[in-house]
Order: sequence, then C-alpha cells, then structure tokens
Amino acid sequence: MKNLISDIPEILLMGPGPSCVYPSVSQALSAPTLGHLDPDFIRIMDGIKNMLQLLLKTQNRLTIPISGTGSAGMETAFVNSIEPGDPVLIIINGVFGTRMQDVAQRLGGAVDVLDFEWGVPVVVEAVKRAIQKKHYNIIAVVHAETSTGVCNPVEDIGMLLKGSDALYLVDAVTSVGGIPVNMDPWCIDILYTGTQKCLSCPPGLSPVSFSEKAVATLMNRKTKVPNWYLDLTMILNYWEGQTRAYHHTAPVNMLYGLYESLRLILEEGPENVYRRHLENHLKLVDGLEGLGLSLLVQLDSRLPMLNSVKVPAGVDEARVRRRLREEFNIEIGAGLGPLAGKIWRIGLMGHTARIENVDRVLDALKIVLEK
Amino acid sequence: MKNLISDIPEILLMGPGPSCVYPSVSQALSAPTLGHLDPDFIRIMDGIKNMLQLLLKTQNRLTIPISGTGSAGMETAFVNSIEPGDPVLIIINGVFGTRMQDVAQRLGGAVDVLDFEWGVPVVVEAVKRAIQKKHYNIIAVVHAETSTGVCNPVEDIGMLLKGSDALYLVDAVTSVGGIPVNMDPWCIDILYTGTQKCLSCPPGLSPVSFSEKAVATLMNRKTKVPNWYLDLTMILNYWEGQTRAYHHTAPVNMLYGLYESLRLILEEGPENVYRRHLENHLKLVDGLEGLGLSLLVQLDSRLPMLNSVKVPAGVDEARVRRRLREEFNIEIGAGLGPLAGKIWRIGLMGHTARIENVDRVLDALKIVLEK
Repeated sequence: MKNLISDIPEILLMGPGPSCVYPSVSQALSAPTLGHLDPDFIRIMDGIKNMLQLLLKTQNRLTIPISGTGSAGMETAFVNSIEPGDPVLIIINGVFGTRMQDVAQRLGGAVDVLDFEWGVPVVVEAVKRAIQKKHYNIIAVVHAETSTGVCNPVEDIGMLLKGSDALYLVDAVTSVGGIPVNMDPWCIDILYTGTQKCLSCPPGLSPVSFSEKAVATLMNRKTKVPNWYLDLTMILNYWEGQTRAYHHTAPVNMLYGLYESLRLILEEGPENVYRRHLENHLKLVDGLEGLGLSLLVQLDSRLPMLNSVKVPAGVDEARVRRRLREEFNIEIGAGLGPLAGKIWRIGLMGHTARIENVDRVLDALKIVLEK
Repeated sequence: MKNLISDIPEILLMGPGPSCVYPSVSQALSAPTLGHLDPDFIRIMDGIKNMLQLLLKTQNRLTIPISGTGSAGMETAFVNSIEPGDPVLIIINGVFGTRMQDVAQRLGGAVDVLDFEWGVPVVVEAVKRAIQKKHYNIIAVVHAETSTGVCNPVEDIGMLLKGSDALYLVDAVTSVGGIPVNMDPWCIDILYTGTQKCLSCPPGLSPVSFSEKAVATLMNRKTKVPNWYLDLTMILNYWEGQTRAYHHTAPVNMLYGLYESLRLILEEGPENVYRRHLENHLKLVDGLEGLGLSLLVQLDSRLPMLNSVKVPAGVDEARVRRRLREEFNIEIGAGLGPLAGKIWRIGLMGHTARIENVDRVLDALKIVLEK
C-alpha cells in the first residue's frame, strides 16, 4: 500500500470545520503515548478539566472531554439526561437542531419541536410562550448553528429558564473558543462542544459539562443510561477522585492536543481570541461585499467564525469550491440541507482566524469568480 | 497553565494497552489536517478499508474504523445488531465478557450468560449444548480476554455456528495484529477491535466489520438504531459510495495514524508480525520462569501479547508496578476484578513486542523483586 501520509498537502481550512490546527497542537499529538492511568497523564487530565472550566465560565465538577467527535457530545448530552417518555423541547433553525431532534427521539424522548426559519435567529418570545404552555424536562437549542451561520440568543433563553426545574441543554460545538460562552452566568445545565472548530485541534474529542442539577437528574435516573460507552456515571469515576477507576482507554494523544489548545487560548486570553475572530470576520465581510457578494444572515445575528455567503445567480457553486481547493489549496464549505447549492460556508475558526487567511481567500475568490 | 506536554516522559508501555506507538505512526498524527470530505482524505479512508479487509481476512464491505476507542466498537457491534427482546448469548470468562453482558442488557437484549472460570478458555462443548437448547439471534465471545491473558477458541465456536442464522459477534480488541484473526474463514459476522493494542496506534479508534448477513439484519430492523452517533446505516453512507454523505466529522489525524500502522503491518507481513509476537512471548515466559514467576494461564491457551503473571506470596504488587514506572520508566498492568492484586499483566503488543523490551522488563523485574 502506498505511503499516502507523507503526501498530504497543506490545505487552508476555511470550511465549517475542521479548522487549521495550531502548530504546537499538531506537535503535541506526537508526544509519547502514556498509559491512561499514568500519574503524568492524570495531571494532564486535571489540567484539561481546569482549563475547560475557565474557558466555559463554569464551576461544574463534571466538565470533561468525551472520547468521540462533536456528535458524540450531542449523544452524551441527551443519553445521560433523557429517559423514555420525558417531555423535551427542541428549538430548531438548522441542521444541528434537526439532529438533536433525531437523537432525542431515538432515545424515547417525547419531543416537541419549535421551528424557526433557517438563516434567522430563534425568537425568544416564542420560546417563552412554548414553555409557559407546557412543562419540559429538557429545553435544547444550538448556540452557533453551523449550517446557517446564525448565532442564537442562548443567554436570553437562559434568563427565561432561570430558577426553572427544566434542564437547559446547549450545543456549543462551533461557538466555544470563537465567541463568549458563559455557562454558569447563562444558566446552562448541559453543554457540549467539539475540538475541530474554534479550539483548532483535530476532530476527535467533545468536551461536555453538566451542572450539579443535571448531575442530580443523572444520578436519580430510574433506568440505566442505555449507552455503556457514554455513561457519565461511570466516566466520572475515571476523571474524578482518588480511585480513577478504569472505564475505557482514553484517547491519550488527542487529549495532549486539547491540553495544548486550551493552554494557547488561555495564554492569548479568551477576550483577545474573541476579538481576533470578530475583527477578521468584519474584514472578510467587507472584502466579500467588495466582490459583490452578500451574506445570508442579518447583521446582528452573524457568527464571526462561520460566514454563510449567498451563491450569486448563474455561478456553479461546486466548481468554485473545487477550483479553490485545486488551484489555491483552500477549502470552503457547501450548504447543507435546504441551503445546499445556495450558500458557501466560509469558516474563520480558531487558528484560521488571521488576516493573512482572510486576504488569501478573498484574493482567490476574486480570481475564481472572474473567470 | 504549565506546558506539561513538552515534559511527557518516554515510557515503555508493557501493560494491557496502550502499547508503544510505531515512530512513523506517531509522526503521521502530526500531518496536516484535511477536511473530512477532501478527495485526498477519501483516498486515505479507502486505503484503511482495504488494509483492514486484508488484515482481518474478510470481504465485508462494511469494514471501517469507528470514531471512538475499543469500547465504542463494542457499543457499535451491539447497538446495530440488537433490538429489544432479542435473545442473546454472551460467553463470559473475564472482564470484557462481563462488559458485553452489560452493554447488551442496556440495549434491551434478552441476555443469557454462559460463564466460565476466569483464566481458563471457553469450553466449546458447553457452547454447543447451550445453542442446541435455545435459539439465539446473537452469540458473542471475546477472542483475547485482556483481563486474564486467555485465548478463546473463536475458530471452533465459529465452526459450530457455520450455516446457522445467528450472528456470531467477536471482540477482537487485543487479538487483531497479534495473532491470526480470520473473519470470513471463521464465520464471524460482527467483529470490533481497537487501535491501542497490537496495531500500535494511540487509543481513539475502533475498527469494526459486519458481514453481509449482519448488514441485512441491520437494514431490516423494526426500530431505528437507538444511538445516532454509532448508527452504521448512516456512517456507511460516509465511508461508501459516490455521495460520501456527511454524518459526523471523522477524527482525521487519528485515521492517518491507523493508515500508517496498517501499512507497516502489511509491509512486515501479518504472518511475520504474529511470529514476532510469539517468539518474544516465549522469551518473556522463559525469563519470567527464570525469576521464579509463573503464569496464570495454561500453556495451550496463552495469548502471546498479554501475559498474566501470578504475584508471588508476600510481594506488594502495587509497589512493584510503581517502582518499575518510577525507576525504570516501564509500565506493566494490574489485575482487574477478581484478579486485582493477584496478577500483573505484561503486554507485548505490536511495536512493543521486541527482544530489547523483553530484556528490559526482565532486568528491571529482577532488581525490583530482589529488594
């Protein structure tokens, strides 16, 4: 078999994730593998927990990375909080809301859906009416809807739910590390994210956090968590306390990468990282408008790290992406679901959010759109 | 936060996994991250599928790595094959058999257990009687029981099941890459393994393979797979065919490592790799016996890659492991469950199975046991 690995090209990753990996994160992946119960590895695990708590602004003891990609985080969030028949409200305005619905229904949740148009944010007043009409055990929403580029009002929904006994579950896969995500101040009970977006690690891990209220619900379940691999009641015993009971073999080298990425973000300062995302987003939008392109999402709901650009009439959108990849070594993303063929998705996530990358994609787009 | 990653020591991993990583696998992890739909990445995915088919001696189209550690492979195997109420027979003679039982019961399987003593192999005659007495949809067994070091007669059980309509499910986490695993000749329908044992990648991926019969069962389910993340009906559309439909973001860099590890094993030749394991195992056992130590498992059922050594009376087993780690940078494993405190587990997996490592652990053990 050919040695394909040594031929892998360096691509500027400006799609919806994975993003470009920080060079020192990339190096960290190659550090010597330690045993998953090694004292030096346990120090790294503790560092990851502490740094995640700082970044997410939470005191939650159960703040750990799950051994799977972002969707494993979604699965973990629901499988550990739902029991069959539990009333659940899923707020949907994109692919990842729809995915939440599918996940929750497979687990036997009695799911109601509150649907909004794709490309515009969730309307808080409508959420308020829905939760006044009926009691839900879980209310779930996506913060940064990666399929559309919309930022949902997660803080405002949190304020509605303050003091309620419902669990507030938030998909923060694309938001964490790119815009503020303040778990405790926003009254979020369950949150998951992914490493391959604004944390600029390779895909493979999904940090999750559960509030004390969410942990209490978990510990008082009537049924066992119907997923051994993602059962947090057992995983917690590995990540916590003196015994460090073996559950499954942790993805050691991927965790090195996450440690290094969190260290870099905290060293730069989260506020500085968010500002870097915003400034480069504004420059990108300026440049796109200069090319005659316009964004799908209205000004006040745009995500800096995921820019949905309308495909102009008469342009072959797949050809544009192919040419960017083949002629300029740049990846941008296509639309998903009802937006397939209608938008491109240009990511500015984590390490990718740099002025030189903004300039490079704008220069390349100019050439590709001209001929 | 401290930069702990640059201080990670080089430990000789002679426990039950993870094993020492091949140097070029370690380097492969740091190759530039590609998008999960990139044409160059799809070539790597295809290479992995083909090499797994060669190594497992199977023609199964559904032969792919799952985005999680070995236990995610176990979860995948059961969640895609069981529906609530299905009669399942789990054959148990160690921790990982017990884990199968737990996984299958959480999924609503009507589980019968066939128990054998830990440290001795499964008795094929007893399996024969059990399956004559009752019809099972799934019959599951662990090939290499990592908790005891026993090799179970997976081929013989397969011959019993030849032509039956039951699905034969085998845990091959520790066996693949260390001893022959011949999926099609042995009539295995569902198999999973892990990357952190004899494949000598870091932990994080779990190759699985489903026969056409197992895929037909999956496609004819009455209920949706109750686990979105591990639903093979969807994952297959990403790993197969022209569309490469996005399911979840694949753990790109971990897959580079797996590609490189499979390439190395096929380059050395699986038969040569198995011989290397066996020869080093025999040398290790010789040396251990020379130190007055004896093995838990009888001669004809020993796994070359996982050696269970009885702790001599009066020896503080935890202190021995701690001294090996602290004074000699060697990790060996403790016993699990009823064998905790009674055995050490010395691994010779993949890249670790080398004469210089056998010598090193024997020299160190000699010193530690003397004083």
